[in-house]
Amino acid sequence: MKRIAIDMDGVLADVYAQFSRWHEAETGEKIAPVVTNGLKEFEAYPNARNYVFTDGFFRSTPLIEGCLQVVEDLNKQYEVFIVSAAMEFSQSLSEKKAWLDEHFPFLSWKQIVFCGSKQIVSADIMIDDHFKNLDFFQGRKILFSQPHNIFTHREDVERVHNWLDVRTKLL
Amino acid sequence: MKRIAIDMDGVLADVYAQFSRWHEAETGEKIAPVVTNGLKEFEAYPNARNYVFTDGFFRSTPLIEGCLQVVEDLNKQYEVFIVSAAMEFSQSLSEKKAWLDEHFPFLSWKQIVFCGSKQIVSADIMIDDHFKNLDFFQGRKILFSQPHNIFTHREDVERVHNWLDVRTKLL
Repeated sequence: MKRIAIDMDGVLADVYAQFSRWHEAETGEKIAPVVTNGLKEFEAYPNARNYVFTDGFFRSTPLIEGCLQVVEDLNKQYEVFIVSAAMEFSQSLSEKKAWLDEHFPFLSWKQIVFCGSKQIVSADIMIDDHFKNLDFFQGRKILFSQPHNIFTHREDVERVHNWLDVRTKLL
Repeated sequence: MKRIAIDMDGVLADVYAQFSRWHEAETGEKIAPVVTNGLKEFEAYPNARNYVFTDGFFRSTPLIEGCLQVVEDLNKQYEVFIVSAAMEFSQSLSEKKAWLDEHFPFLSWKQIVFCGSKQIVSADIMIDDHFKNLDFFQGRKILFSQPHNIFTHREDVERVHNWLDVRTKLL
């Protein structure tokens, strides 16, 4: 059974949508998603770095459309691990665990990995929205489209735009 | 630079000593360390399973003698990762992170991994007190002596009795 490492933020958790909600709640300004294309989270949302260190940010992040059913189906055919570089934001650890327990009850705690660097991860397939995580990975690299990576094209990674694309590629 | 994965409980954190303290505080009974030889934590200390789900247990666990200086020296010659199967005890995640931050300030958050199964870990050397974690590991397997593993001898793992042994082997 092939092992697949699935990222959380930007792959399962819609952090741009969450930043947008928190930015609007704080400033009253609504930032259209298209405006964020090509921008990192911290460029698109000036107070993003405060938000990620605030209790509740990760716990209440919405799901990326379509991920639930595809991950549940992947879980029947692959050895699924959810791998999140959560260690930078200590307070997010318990929030991310609770978020996964709520939304992905079919996953076991044995399938969850919170790390800093993903260089230590051994798997056959990695789905991630950051080149920096895919760069050190030896297996099949699948880049999940997010505004920050949308204008960068690279031959050595496969791009998916959404979870329907993941289903088409892997199921 | 070789990568080394170092376990927390039973390797850096003296969980038997902590169980012993909590058991004595609860029952008044002092259990001599020698009595626990050959016994798993949950066999030696009847209420151990309650303790590990109680706030503060992991945060206040004492260090295993000699680990600090050896880990600091290893960190200069190896790519060190601290890898703890912490995910079963959700409340322990932030406590373990705070414990590492307090005692090992020379380690970066990038060097910490909290997981369920350690099968996903890729490294050259693993130091762990559980055969179940070493069994799936492809690299050099170093078993750290703890009461629960003390009577099991296996050819495919190297045993260390303390951190002086680790220093002798690796530095």
